[in-house]
Amino acid sequence: MVEAVETMDGWYSLHDMRTVDWVSWKMASAEEREEAITSFLNLIEKWEAVEEAKNGSHAMYTVVGQKADLLFMFLRPTMEELNELETEFNKSKMAEFLIPAHSYVSIIELAKYRESKDGVDPETLPEIQARLKPILPKWEHICFYPMNRRRIGDENWYTLEKDVRAKLLYEHSKTGRKYAGKVKQFITGSIGIDDWEWGVTLFAHDALEFKKIVYEMRFDEVSSRYGEFGYFFVGNILKKQAVPAFLHV
Amino acid sequence: MVEAVETMDGWYSLHDMRTVDWVSWKMASAEEREEAITSFLNLIEKWEAVEEAKNGSHAMYTVVGQKADLLFMFLRPTMEELNELETEFNKSKMAEFLIPAHSYVSIIELAKYRESKDGVDPETLPEIQARLKPILPKWEHICFYPMNRRRIGDENWYTLEKDVRAKLLYEHSKTGRKYAGKVKQFITGSIGIDDWEWGVTLFAHDALEFKKIVYEMRFDEVSSRYGEFGYFFVGNILKKQAVPAFLHV
Amino acid sequence: MVEAVETMDGWYSLHDMRTVDWVSWKMASAEEREEAITSFLNLIEKWEAVEEAKNGSHAMYTVVGQKADLLFMFLRPTMEELNELETEFNKSKMAEFLIPAHSYVSIIELAKYRESKDGVDPETLPEIQARLKPILPKWEHICFYPMNRRRIGDENWYTLEKDVRAKLLYEHSKTGRKYAGKVKQFITGSIGIDDWEWGVTLFAHDALEFKKIVYEMRFDEVSSRYGEFGYFFVGNILKKQAVPAFLHV
Amino acid sequence: MVEAVETMDGWYSLHDMRTVDWVSWKMASAEEREEAITSFLNLIEKWEAVEEAKNGSHAMYTVVGQKADLLFMFLRPTMEELNELETEFNKSKMAEFLIPAHSYVSIIELAKYRESKDGVDPETLPEIQARLKPILPKWEHICFYPMNRRRIGDENWYTLEKDVRAKLLYEHSKTGRKYAGKVKQFITGSIGIDDWEWGVTLFAHDALEFKKIVYEMRFDEVSSRYGEFGYFFVGNILKKQAVPAFLHV
Amino acid sequence: MVEAVETMDGWYSLHDMRTVDWVSWKMASAEEREEAITSFLNLIEKWEAVEEAKNGSHAMYTVVGQKADLLFMFLRPTMEELNELETEFNKSKMAEFLIPAHSYVSIIELAKYRESKDGVDPETLPEIQARLKPILPKWEHICFYPMNRRRIGDENWYTLEKDVRAKLLYEHSKTGRKYAGKVKQFITGSIGIDDWEWGVTLFAHDALEFKKIVYEMRFDEVSSRYGEFGYFFVGNILKKQAVPAFLHV
Repeated sequence: MVEAVETMDGWYSLHDMRTVDWVSWKMASAEEREEAITSFLNLIEKWEAVEEAKNGSHAMYTVVGQKADLLFMFLRPTMEELNELETEFNKSKMAEFLIPAHSYVSIIELAKYRESKDGVDPETLPEIQARLKPILPKWEHICFYPMNRRRIGDENWYTLEKDVRAKLLYEHSKTGRKYAGKVKQFITGSIGIDDWEWGVTLFAHDALEFKKIVYEMRFDEVSSRYGEFGYFFVGNILKKQAVPAFLHV
Repeated sequence: MVEAVETMDGWYSLHDMRTVDWVSWKMASAEEREEAITSFLNLIEKWEAVEEAKNGSHAMYTVVGQKADLLFMFLRPTMEELNELETEFNKSKMAEFLIPAHSYVSIIELAKYRESKDGVDPETLPEIQARLKPILPKWEHICFYPMNRRRIGDENWYTLEKDVRAKLLYEHSKTGRKYAGKVKQFITGSIGIDDWEWGVTLFAHDALEFKKIVYEMRFDEVSSRYGEFGYFFVGNILKKQAVPAFLHV
Repeated sequence: MVEAVETMDGWYSLHDMRTVDWVSWKMASAEEREEAITSFLNLIEKWEAVEEAKNGSHAMYTVVGQKADLLFMFLRPTMEELNELETEFNKSKMAEFLIPAHSYVSIIELAKYRESKDGVDPETLPEIQARLKPILPKWEHICFYPMNRRRIGDENWYTLEKDVRAKLLYEHSKTGRKYAGKVKQFITGSIGIDDWEWGVTLFAHDALEFKKIVYEMRFDEVSSRYGEFGYFFVGNILKKQAVPAFLHV
Repeated sequence: MVEAVETMDGWYSLHDMRTVDWVSWKMASAEEREEAITSFLNLIEKWEAVEEAKNGSHAMYTVVGQKADLLFMFLRPTMEELNELETEFNKSKMAEFLIPAHSYVSIIELAKYRESKDGVDPETLPEIQARLKPILPKWEHICFYPMNRRRIGDENWYTLEKDVRAKLLYEHSKTGRKYAGKVKQFITGSIGIDDWEWGVTLFAHDALEFKKIVYEMRFDEVSSRYGEFGYFFVGNILKKQAVPAFLHV
Repeated sequence: MVEAVETMDGWYSLHDMRTVDWVSWKMASAEEREEAITSFLNLIEKWEAVEEAKNGSHAMYTVVGQKADLLFMFLRPTMEELNELETEFNKSKMAEFLIPAHSYVSIIELAKYRESKDGVDPETLPEIQARLKPILPKWEHICFYPMNRRRIGDENWYTLEKDVRAKLLYEHSKTGRKYAGKVKQFITGSIGIDDWEWGVTLFAHDALEFKKIVYEMRFDEVSSRYGEFGYFFVGNILKKQAVPAFLHV
């Protein structure tokens, strides 16, 4: 039996995608729409206060294509807080016009492949803590996809020795590093939590970089032989001040 | 042909997930909502009475993410009692506002891989009977997922000799034992009953333990080579006294 | 090319699963519900008359879990009669409150693997005719699942020689015989008729026997290497006299 | 690279399956239902006129099971005519009570595996033209299923040499010929047109023949090793004069 | 690790399929329908103005079969413009009668397999720029399908050396060239953007050419061993002036 890898775990994460029910929205009275937008802006302000207090973070994007219209990513210290946030959103006036389209539950995760240096547990380092409890960037574009590591015959990630896995991941990270400043990546673990093993959330200033990085990485052995990829959501940032215009009909 | 394993079987199990139809719920009058909550609390009290009489058990959790809002797990001595419970729930006022999201039917199961000791049939032992007819813990978090044992080419659980299977499961159980006190696991068999071969229900005080145990176990050969995993539901406990607040709009 | 096997074929079969729309049912007036129940009981009596005349048979069960609430199995001499029965059901008052959940079309089938004895065509034997046109048992529980024989690389049922297939099926039948009196099995063929190759319908006095027989059989080579299994429905018998109580709200 | 096969192509084909919305149908007034039936009979007469003029053909069957209630197969010389026919149907009064259940778009296809005889291009022969632009039989039963040729590892139809493919198909055709007079088969190609590579439409006087032919053919190497089969629809002929009775409530 | 290929990337692409809700459309008043058609024609004129200014392009087709009724393909310089276009469409009166059926997000892509000639970066060439920012043809028929390159065991596109991939693609392009003038092909990349790796959009004067080209290409090694194909949409051109007739009821 090969050695498992320990993880360092941070905030709990909820990706929440919703579709605007434009027909109902247009049928609602101007007052109702006003009330809904106000309820929505109030929620956003609550989320912003949490983020300012460094008790969590969030991202809000509009989705291109019919998979959804809005994509939220929420980070919170506990599963209970995620659940409360979600229920509060569901009970809001705005939610009456938003049809749930997809969600993904996971936990910010860093793998401990490298040994602790000088006997210091990396999890105690401030830079690691910052990565485990990150404030999400407000970059122009988001990309979310879930993935598995393959377990088929000879192509079985979970029967590879730990040092082999570490090496493959290290090679992979070198591809990632080429995109520094262009793409910011957050890995969330979801083994035992949601239907895929990991979620990958990318932020970019230029949406083309999503294609460039994922394409180039697909030739890394860790992806070409061991990666299984799910669906992809891409979106454009939706700033709070742009919400009324987005919803104006 | 390899030797099959005998099972010891206990209570019948129904996992029942439902989504709150918040729009209808808010459109209902305060009286209707009151009536629905009362009907729901009455059901919960009935379930509690069954549990106190040790004629069954149940668990009630709120689900994180859009897969469902509520997850119930019901244990009863017969399939008929499960069916009656389900039908009574379906006919209740509360159910008018709950959309069925998923269900899973199975039976509490223990494998008899080890020989009986001193000629005593393990099924007659009180500690085994307690495990076959368990009172479910009221721990903070729940995790449910179904799984199969693989049958593809050389990776075929059902063509492995019984002692090889026993050994692989024994190794696996050692990983499980590391989580004693942190994670409580219930295996329910569903071959011939529902779409996957087994259901796994985990309880934990800390939701992070779900990820840690399932991740670590994935490196056990019994999982890495022979495990096929379905979808995952995770939730937070919903106590009876918290129901009105959860449903308050 | 290997030799195909001839089949002996009997009555046409329709498995018809439906979900009660409890919300509409409760919203209907007492008169409407009364009318619906009466229309339903009239249909059941018609089906009973057909069964008494040995022109077909039927089974009616309530399903555990959310896949459906009711499971019907209908046997008739022709595809036209099945279709008429289904259409009459669809037009009935009761059907206004039943949402189609699933169906399966197939034909009672016996394989002719063994040679005719003493030059007698087995299909002409009364005991075979009785098995091809069976009156379904009114046992406490039902289980239905569809299945295929695998055709992947070396594990290809359809490239095995006929005598090898016969031997594997004979071994399999020995497992089945252990459950005589406990489980009654009906095989319906659906190659060219519905999405899987066969349907398997089991009846038992004790629902646990479904798990025991399907589990044990999974270790038979014919299942472990050549069986592919779909979804499973399980249910409890619904007698005509219990219909009003089942539908009482 | 192996040599591709040329095809001879005839009329464009649309399989169109619809489910009757019996609840709306019964809620409609007698006048509305009358209007709908009349609109439907008018459409059928239009289709009959096209068939009499040999500008196309059609088939109309009722489907057994819940996949659909009605199955239409339409043949027309162009994709535009298929589209117009479909849109006219969609706009009709009858279509207000028919829920789209499935469709399949393809083109009548014959493979040119055999060399032209005596320098004559087979496509110019009247008997080939008749098969490319066929009048569909009005036999008692229909069966439709889509299929692919496998492309997995060593079992790859598209890497087999043309003469090997021709030989396998020739063997297969011998099985088919045994059913002459019992089963009439139409192959429609849908590579580049719809989700599977081919559609197979069978007509029979006795529905049992569908099972017999597809079962026997599954042992032909071309099917056992290279065939991948989708879903199956089976139905009984619905004659124009039987439409009012079928829709009578 | 094999060398990845660089891509040249052009306009962002949205395929947007919608189904007409004919029942609602017919229930709407003549004034409402008039308003909807006008809003739709206004949108089309806006899109035409963008195309005339060479700031994007679009295509509009009616779909054969039930997958959708309308297929739009939109090209724009940025993801934001695509999103705005889509949201404006969603808010329009016409969209109240159009049910989203499918969408696909991707980016016009050319692979840089060949070396730059004489030190000139091909991306700077006007003919390449024209292919990256193309005006879509107004040909009679459209075909859209997504595809992946296989990554299974020995059949793994992403572990092939770059020159091997280049050679396979070159052979493939020779098949394509036979269809010059008959089929016009646009490749859009969607790795990191949508659920498949590429989208393929074909235009033809004769719909039969879609089947001919895709069928013939399936025998190219790059397809037979490395191609995985999704669903297919086919349609007929819908010109602006034909919109009122198409929607006339």
